[in-house]
Amino acid sequence: MIRKEVKDFEPYTVMEGDYRIWLDKNESPFDLPMELKDSIFDDLKNLEFNRYPDIDGRGLKKKLASSLELHKSNIVVGNGSDQLIDCIMDLFMGDHMIIHTPTFGMYSFYAKKRGLNIVEVPLDEEYDLPAIDYDFEGARVIFICSPNTPTGNVLDREKIIDYLETGCPVVLDEAYADFAENSNLDLIDEYSNLIILRTFSKAYGLAALRVGYAVGDESLMRQMSKIISPYNINKISLEITKRMMDEDKLIQENIEFIKKERENMISELSEYAYPSQTNFVMFDLDAYEYLLKKGIVVRKLSGRLTGKIRVTVGNKEENREVMTALNEFVSVLP
Amino acid sequence: MIRKEVKDFEPYTVMEGDYRIWLDKNESPFDLPMELKDSIFDDLKNLEFNRYPDIDGRGLKKKLASSLELHKSNIVVGNGSDQLIDCIMDLFMGDHMIIHTPTFGMYSFYAKKRGLNIVEVPLDEEYDLPAIDYDFEGARVIFICSPNTPTGNVLDREKIIDYLETGCPVVLDEAYADFAENSNLDLIDEYSNLIILRTFSKAYGLAALRVGYAVGDESLMRQMSKIISPYNINKISLEITKRMMDEDKLIQENIEFIKKERENMISELSEYAYPSQTNFVMFDLDAYEYLLKKGIVVRKLSGRLTGKIRVTVGNKEENREVMTALNEFVSVLP
Repeated sequence: MIRKEVKDFEPYTVMEGDYRIWLDKNESPFDLPMELKDSIFDDLKNLEFNRYPDIDGRGLKKKLASSLELHKSNIVVGNGSDQLIDCIMDLFMGDHMIIHTPTFGMYSFYAKKRGLNIVEVPLDEEYDLPAIDYDFEGARVIFICSPNTPTGNVLDREKIIDYLETGCPVVLDEAYADFAENSNLDLIDEYSNLIILRTFSKAYGLAALRVGYAVGDESLMRQMSKIISPYNINKISLEITKRMMDEDKLIQENIEFIKKERENMISELSEYAYPSQTNFVMFDLDAYEYLLKKGIVVRKLSGRLTGKIRVTVGNKEENREVMTALNEFVSVLP
Repeated sequence: MIRKEVKDFEPYTVMEGDYRIWLDKNESPFDLPMELKDSIFDDLKNLEFNRYPDIDGRGLKKKLASSLELHKSNIVVGNGSDQLIDCIMDLFMGDHMIIHTPTFGMYSFYAKKRGLNIVEVPLDEEYDLPAIDYDFEGARVIFICSPNTPTGNVLDREKIIDYLETGCPVVLDEAYADFAENSNLDLIDEYSNLIILRTFSKAYGLAALRVGYAVGDESLMRQMSKIISPYNINKISLEITKRMMDEDKLIQENIEFIKKERENMISELSEYAYPSQTNFVMFDLDAYEYLLKKGIVVRKLSGRLTGKIRVTVGNKEENREVMTALNEFVSVLP
């Protein structure tokens, strides 16, 4: 009685255990300052825990709309971007979805869960989108991640536009755009087949709260908001996220710190590091086990990226430690 | 490019507006006491907001397992029961699902979203399950809600067992079981095709947090945990829920209050009230608009229940107000 897709399904797992330094999940190194937590929790005491949250997170949508200079019907909020990815796959017709490889693993997770075929478009040698050499007949949606994980680079805007021009629904995941020079958010004015995903888990340092949002054409977002679960974000995550949108100065400082550290890490091992517009760096170093022995967890890459690692930019001490270890690793390379 | 099921989809809506008394969502009338909130928030200050929560809510699962005297692999936790309902529909094979009518609306919501056919089994005159007169060939799952909403009654255990004996996967939603005399949780030892749903939104008064859980056979729950979204419950909801599981005395007092008030409400208008083992009462009174004019929101029922209302048991004052208004309404009935 269990579906075959479920039986064959490989669960999503992460490294766990008793390690000192975690640079594997692209989390922010910055927790909220204690005085800010104090003030947030003071406000939260007035929340009624016994009452359901906004049915559609409208308070947060309104705040996002005003910050992005859009209308609130351009926005759908989700219990992490994950819920939005899942929901989007139910939105469109088509017997397969398209992803570029390598990229974020959750697009495939949600496709496989529903038995949706996946067509993989390999990125080119620079990990950029290739020219379109594909018939989009029957394609449900294409997922593009830019800046991309785990490679760290921004994909070429003109190429993204080429994909949009096919008319196929395009999801552009900009989870890391806060660390990049440019965003493609302006494209939603022009392309009604575009949905952009953003998250508060990375630059805003709110991974604990699970809040993401989708931005797109009003009529498209209206359809999406019909089928996404009502009451999908809890009241506390909604409140804290709204509150943190007022802390622009703090967030910008954190972003600047991370970008600076990132560039230091890249230049320190420039021979092995890939350029990045994110809060992580991909290194062409097979150092996963070496780092793990020192209590440092990074992401071990596989497939086409076998032998490489993805290292989240952490705080000063963490970055110092991982770079020291990587320098040691390099010094004994044959 | 939008799926037809989505275009035709009717969104889930709730009454909104500027009313005084909300007795429409079966929420608990009890917010947490302020000193408990103080203590909870003191603990929460040590949570790292920048780090993802448990990938599978294992801390909460462990605590639930110990409280239910089960193993943690018997349990899957969800972002509200809603997420569990949604996930369960992806778990099994079959071209249609079965619900009894009337019942909770979200089973149909998630079936319609995925274009899954719904076969409706009408409850009998007492709103109990009918004898099985149905070929289960091709049925993906049957949803049984007991105690049922909006009718308030517990469905007959022997009939539930008859449905289990067919071998078809059965989801038994026990969202309101804390207000009932008995639960059917013990049946999971015997039936590997049974999943029981529970929630912290009703008796625990934590609707704001969106936490529910599913209990079932280990191998079945292991399949379910593979396909449910990782990191599906935020850290704060997980922490507060675990903490509230230690407040058994408070929760039991609240439940006793609600049961006592419920019985008072039923006996006060016994001619119109249906028996209830929940935190609400169904009345055979077409008083929705009448109450609304007085600033009191209840649930207006439809279909087979047209002309009836569902009234959540609120606090003493709210119950006094709604009963006074209903008595007035009755006194002028033709």
